[in-house]
Amino acid sequence: MAVTLVSSNRSFKGRQFVYKHASTTTQCEMTFGVYIPDHEADEKRPALFYLSGLTCTHANFMEKSGFQQYASKYRFIVVHPDTSPRGVDVEGDSDSWDFGKGAGFYVNATVEKWAKNYRMYDYIVKELLEDVVPKVAPIDAARVGIFGHSMGGHGAITIGLRNPSKFKSISAFAPICNPITVPWGQKALAGYLGDDQSTWQQYDASEILKAYTGPCRIILIDQGTADNFLAQLKPETLKETNHAGVMLRMQPEFDHSYYFIATFMEDHFEHHAKHFRSI
Amino acid sequence: MAVTLVSSNRSFKGRQFVYKHASTTTQCEMTFGVYIPDHEADEKRPALFYLSGLTCTHANFMEKSGFQQYASKYRFIVVHPDTSPRGVDVEGDSDSWDFGKGAGFYVNATVEKWAKNYRMYDYIVKELLEDVVPKVAPIDAARVGIFGHSMGGHGAITIGLRNPSKFKSISAFAPICNPITVPWGQKALAGYLGDDQSTWQQYDASEILKAYTGPCRIILIDQGTADNFLAQLKPETLKETNHAGVMLRMQPEFDHSYYFIATFMEDHFEHHAKHFRSI
Repeated sequence: MAVTLVSSNRSFKGRQFVYKHASTTTQCEMTFGVYIPDHEADEKRPALFYLSGLTCTHANFMEKSGFQQYASKYRFIVVHPDTSPRGVDVEGDSDSWDFGKGAGFYVNATVEKWAKNYRMYDYIVKELLEDVVPKVAPIDAARVGIFGHSMGGHGAITIGLRNPSKFKSISAFAPICNPITVPWGQKALAGYLGDDQSTWQQYDASEILKAYTGPCRIILIDQGTADNFLAQLKPETLKETNHAGVMLRMQPEFDHSYYFIATFMEDHFEHHAKHFRSI
Repeated sequence: MAVTLVSSNRSFKGRQFVYKHASTTTQCEMTFGVYIPDHEADEKRPALFYLSGLTCTHANFMEKSGFQQYASKYRFIVVHPDTSPRGVDVEGDSDSWDFGKGAGFYVNATVEKWAKNYRMYDYIVKELLEDVVPKVAPIDAARVGIFGHSMGGHGAITIGLRNPSKFKSISAFAPICNPITVPWGQKALAGYLGDDQSTWQQYDASEILKAYTGPCRIILIDQGTADNFLAQLKPETLKETNHAGVMLRMQPEFDHSYYFIATFMEDHFEHHAKHFRSI
């Protein structure tokens, strides 16, 4: 499977790359970004996967978060995929900003119309992590973490907790925490998975956390108190269990924007670094 | 003159604001951004003016440079205006990306067609600095610096050196240094000022530096070696004089993008801070 370079820019002590490839999972061409810090020829580096929110592509995080300085400082590879299939047209995929294009919700769709392309869960967990990224970046598969924002925070928590052997650390900025109970989540889960709500729980961060019995995970979550979308996010639904803890920090005056994300970015790198040091 | 709030976002220990106002200088509505660090009610803070490059609005710097963390750390107010008049239509102002809209070149036009609106020099030096910004931000007029990128680097050096009592420190990322000798500059200067090239020199950084006899100025300039536009920028034309020095740093592998600017942003804040400490 060919992976094609789209762009390359020197940034701090490393390079910001954008690649595209024909995805076998989503059956279309996918674009993703990856920052690679300077490294020795035979050196493997820890990696973070960052999942973006509704309406984003791979580019928003790359252009607006300022993450590159911390990826350079901590010498982490950072992979930031797109949020949905692109370049295929499924009827209705552009009718609204919170479903279809830009809104894959990191699920494997089962409703027939969407099931062929909308498989962002497998795309991240299998194809990108295991097949594609190793072709272009020297990732140390033992030290991979996952984080994200809003819909991507939902993706980071659900994917991270369901795949603890692949993702050793988790954090999120203003994640959607209980999608089965809020309009964004109900629309997406009904659309991609159908009306049987018992199937929705496998993509609900609060439900997954409740049942989680894997290795210990402390999830760092930053949430702005002036976030207009707080009613859709519901961080209070995430409850500690014997196997997982939530470090929820309510940040006064901050909203849902990349100004908020940029402000606390370094803390998230330190959070993941702390976990990697213990591996 | 009313100044109207467009947006306000918490960012690090301060706020990113965008304002608009009816400009008496450019005879149209102008938009600008300003970051204000947290401060006491009666506290004045140093300020930096950042001038953007060709095609930019006030927003590129705000969204892509990551400057807010340093404005917060150094507790500087940072003002970032638009690059040309907007909302008025002069025939031909949208025909090319390097002249007209997004390409004011920080000059006061004298060619009749442009002379009414294209007065970005006076807009920055007089209206914005003296009238508008003090209405919304507690700037310490004794400690104001200026910096910019590309066309905005040209603006920063020319405006800074011509107004040493107003701007106490100067720096630039990949500035246009000798516009009278390169296509971008020749097109803009002929267009706005007419064919008498003797009038162009007042807007040429190298020519102004050569004749500069004001208070000592050390100008920090970062320039990427992989910059596609190097032939238009000509940093080697800036020569030291008895009154001014140029600290030119050629940065290997870096291009003309905001990845380059973000990488060296902190050094520029430290450069201006050093000058302010001695005032």
